Amino acid sequence: MSHYISNLTDIKFDLLELLDRDSVYGTGVFEDFGTDSADTVLNEAARYAETKLATSFADADRESVTFDAATNSVRLPTAYRETAADYLDSGWLDLDLPHEISEQSVPPSLSWCVTEMMLGANAAIPQGLNVIPQVVRLLHDHGNAQQKQWAKLIVERNWMVTMVLTEPDAGSDVGAGRTRATPQADGTWHLEGVKRFITYGDHDLTENIIHLVLARPEGVEGVGGPGTGGLSLFVVPKFHFDSETGALGERNGVLATGLEHKMGITGSPTCEMTFGSDAPAVAWLLGDQHAGIKQMFEIIKHVRMLVGVKAMAALSTGYLNARAYALDRVQGQQLGAPHSSKPVSIIDHSDVRRSLMTQKAYAEGMRAMILYTATQQDRLAQAKSQGIHDAEADACHQLMLPIIKGFCSETAWRVLGQESLQTFGGSGYLKDYPIEQYVRDTKVDTLYEGTTGIQGLDLFSRKIMRDNGAALERLIAEMSKTSDFSELGTFGEEREVLDAAITAVREMVSLLTERWGSSTDKTRRSLAAQDTTGLLIALGTLTCGWLLLRSADVAAALIEGGASKDRDFLTGKVATGQWYARHVLTKLPAELEAMKLSDAQLNELSRDCF
Amino acid sequence: MSHYISNLTDIKFDLLELLDRDSVYGTGVFEDFGTDSADTVLNEAARYAETKLATSFADADRESVTFDAATNSVRLPTAYRETAADYLDSGWLDLDLPHEISEQSVPPSLSWCVTEMMLGANAAIPQGLNVIPQVVRLLHDHGNAQQKQWAKLIVERNWMVTMVLTEPDAGSDVGAGRTRATPQADGTWHLEGVKRFITYGDHDLTENIIHLVLARPEGVEGVGGPGTGGLSLFVVPKFHFDSETGALGERNGVLATGLEHKMGITGSPTCEMTFGSDAPAVAWLLGDQHAGIKQMFEIIKHVRMLVGVKAMAALSTGYLNARAYALDRVQGQQLGAPHSSKPVSIIDHSDVRRSLMTQKAYAEGMRAMILYTATQQDRLAQAKSQGIHDAEADACHQLMLPIIKGFCSETAWRVLGQESLQTFGGSGYLKDYPIEQYVRDTKVDTLYEGTTGIQGLDLFSRKIMRDNGAALERLIAEMSKTSDFSELGTFGEEREVLDAAITAVREMVSLLTERWGSSTDKTRRSLAAQDTTGLLIALGTLTCGWLLLRSADVAAALIEGGASKDRDFLTGKVATGQWYARHVLTKLPAELEAMKLSDAQLNELSRDCF
Repeated sequence: MSHYISNLTDIKFDLLELLDRDSVYGTGVFEDFGTDSADTVLNEAARYAETKLATSFADADRESVTFDAATNSVRLPTAYRETAADYLDSGWLDLDLPHEISEQSVPPSLSWCVTEMMLGANAAIPQGLNVIPQVVRLLHDHGNAQQKQWAKLIVERNWMVTMVLTEPDAGSDVGAGRTRATPQADGTWHLEGVKRFITYGDHDLTENIIHLVLARPEGVEGVGGPGTGGLSLFVVPKFHFDSETGALGERNGVLATGLEHKMGITGSPTCEMTFGSDAPAVAWLLGDQHAGIKQMFEIIKHVRMLVGVKAMAALSTGYLNARAYALDRVQGQQLGAPHSSKPVSIIDHSDVRRSLMTQKAYAEGMRAMILYTATQQDRLAQAKSQGIHDAEADACHQLMLPIIKGFCSETAWRVLGQESLQTFGGSGYLKDYPIEQYVRDTKVDTLYEGTTGIQGLDLFSRKIMRDNGAALERLIAEMSKTSDFSELGTFGEEREVLDAAITAVREMVSLLTERWGSSTDKTRRSLAAQDTTGLLIALGTLTCGWLLLRSADVAAALIEGGASKDRDFLTGKVATGQWYARHVLTKLPAELEAMKLSDAQLNELSRDCF
Repeated sequence: MSHYISNLTDIKFDLLELLDRDSVYGTGVFEDFGTDSADTVLNEAARYAETKLATSFADADRESVTFDAATNSVRLPTAYRETAADYLDSGWLDLDLPHEISEQSVPPSLSWCVTEMMLGANAAIPQGLNVIPQVVRLLHDHGNAQQKQWAKLIVERNWMVTMVLTEPDAGSDVGAGRTRATPQADGTWHLEGVKRFITYGDHDLTENIIHLVLARPEGVEGVGGPGTGGLSLFVVPKFHFDSETGALGERNGVLATGLEHKMGITGSPTCEMTFGSDAPAVAWLLGDQHAGIKQMFEIIKHVRMLVGVKAMAALSTGYLNARAYALDRVQGQQLGAPHSSKPVSIIDHSDVRRSLMTQKAYAEGMRAMILYTATQQDRLAQAKSQGIHDAEADACHQLMLPIIKGFCSETAWRVLGQESLQTFGGSGYLKDYPIEQYVRDTKVDTLYEGTTGIQGLDLFSRKIMRDNGAALERLIAEMSKTSDFSELGTFGEEREVLDAAITAVREMVSLLTERWGSSTDKTRRSLAAQDTTGLLIALGTLTCGWLLLRSADVAAALIEGGASKDRDFLTGKVATGQWYARHVLTKLPAELEAMKLSDAQLNELSRDCF
């Protein structure tokens, strides 16, 4: 049996009932993807994820990736390589390709549902491979004629790609990167430097690898210089190739010089890469433009969402595995039952129900939050096809990204470990069940593409302060409007809780805004920054709660309307919204009180006092 | 350099300043252990833990325990076996031996500090080996003359011991155990059955292993029967032996038939054990008394505390490793600093400070809570030596055990993973640093010796309801008294927070007591049990906060009094108490509000709605 359990019912509920995608699919640029096609895609994706992609999930963890220092080459575990190759061939990645190459326009909200299932089934594979369409898009959008041709070659020949940013002394501070690029007479550049934490930096999965590398041009007037602004983006192939045919040529001077040993996602090779040590690392400037960090961020935005989806997908299958175990495992009598009573399935014990409901609420709340954000991408795509930039959808999307990345990664890891794993008792600690691997594989999600601390700062200083909170206010206005839902009248208590939570989060933002100040001041900004991570978690908590209550409202209306299908699911949806409001949203006002009590002491404390 | 960093300064502060142990050490039964000897013991223990025991910490994780099914034997990793053998020889375990055997009476509060350091250095070793003195004590206290002699042999010959409770279908519900014991004509018993999750069930560390096994007597009138009440405790040696000399004889019919593959503590062998499959498993009834569960619980009580200490010790060294990294790692400018500013050590970033303070506060709060509980053991030992049973100390100790086990294990794992590991950025995910192993090794602490759900039920139904909350009220009265401290007048805000937290927890207990009811009722008890885990976490949160504020008060007084030593440490102590009150204790009233909103819906929901 597959370790991976998809949740198609919830996915379809979100798309069709909660987020009204039937009014969007099959229209405008999504003309070819009506709800019927979407349904087929989702069913097929679930089948592929569960029966194909999931098969090497455990093997990739047990049989390690290996590194041969003599040849600077990385080998993937056999079963894992086969599954990854199948995924690369399967066509699922085409859903994310730019319209100009794939000749189809898939609604992003639909594509993210497919991605969720692939990540849930075998995270280490799509976590690396799903970057391919983004690099193809970048080369297509920004590349010169030759580079646009490379984009096609990557697709045709199934080449792998990488994002190469981090250096040993440039992690959170990308702008500290020292890899340098020297221009050559023939228009190419030679790179020199060492990069770290490069996902799929080397492997034996594909015949070629196209690296996208941030480096600092030297010796050219008007470009380069310190900070992120001085970085340019270069294309560096593992093997040189013929731009027309793709036929491989000489090996380029980019070498894997180390392999990291990690807590989880051990199937995915994380490499140290050295540029230009033995032979020149020949590189091409992307689009002949020195706009490295801006270009790279087009991919990073996608990958931050990908990481949040990965975490949510793990919690979703973690919950469904825990649920299956709790239904099956018989242990202990019910509390207060007569002495002669038979033992029951542990799902009938209160504390196990509390634990399962916690898992269910967060998994489904995060999925709703992610797909709500994906609908902003739907809007952007529709508008773009009409030559319009939908600024409001863009701002909402940008606002949600750090929340999705930070909140989903922190929450999924915690709930998987505290609740899903513990549902299994001691067995949860064993490799007999997938949960302990889910926990290890998910821990990294709080780290890469920016730690939670970085996401919190990005959220507050870039996504809230820069537009004076306009995007956030629009989101909160939408929440406030729906806190008024409940024509059915069953959610009185929960509506009050939601209102109080909205007020609390709004006050947090005012408080931090006031502390942050309008001009730069070390003391003020450091005080505000004590609570930016807290604000991120609070906003994630609120957004999930809002969407879970909207879901409950929609479900209640469907039941009231006499829905014959999925009645148990809908009843569960109502209970989930109510439970989360009562047991999670209720805590937000206390978070505000704690923030109010933050003061300068923490920042002023001498280092030696720690 | 050792991965393990002890915190002697904080340990000594707790013992001498916070818990006033200099008025107890060197007196009464602890006559031979004055504060000077205690100081020497602590310094030596820290040295041994850091330089000896810690050495095979990583090896034991990388080179696995192996199982040979043909010979039913388990082999420990080489480096790990050497360290474990050294620890067994070192004499540190003698601190916990009963006075009658070791001829010394070590204050339990002192002994737990030593245990903390050993667990922090290489948890998998003391987590198994520290059970030896407890089994020796049990044999000595309850055994017949021959069994008392066995207790001495275990010490003299460095034999290992085990606790054998769990079966495949009897985990949380120990009373469902089916291993049966049949009486023999010679007074021995033969056991038949399969046990699971047996820590150090087999290995090549010691020449013999003495198993303590719960089994159900059959065919004898008046004993046996269903549930935990029908279980007796049996002594089952791996090899038969001469009771006088200890010389080994034939192999007994108890065999390791499997080895578990775990997420962490992989050096510690966890075995499936089969009794009486090929040859009879000859067993001796402990003390000729059928009192299995009661006897076993004398050890379980100790081990539950051990598990809490293990978790706290991991967080403590996790924090100190993160602190060292944060001092060393230079990355990024300070917020609000001029553009030309140099990058700073990450300890100067607000969010890193918040994270470090979170780690420090929980690690030190949990240590204080554990040592406060250990002082109850000091009181019990002093009274016992005078022939008195100190019922109040006993009740306080029993009340604190599930809190220590449940709260420390949940909190340490979460804070290690969310904060300590993340302080290292992506490097935290690598095996280059000890943190990722701390996280894996600590996850098991929420599981063994009863999951957190079981601890919550034990706390509420046994430790609070059975004495009508008397022990808890005494603890709360002590807290309320100290919430009145602050002659120094600097803790006004925090005193209010503590008062509100005390009131909230007291109301939680009233609420659950009312829901629980006086007679058994399935609906009422199931409703109360939705929040027993929450109550446990709230009580742990409160107790840590109370002791951190007491510590802050003591530290402030020492500074005010002109203390010349450890002034930075004392300043940090004041800041830690204040920070925890402001950022953690403030949240307890909201927990109460959430509990008030619990209702029957969760328990009444059909299984299919999950």
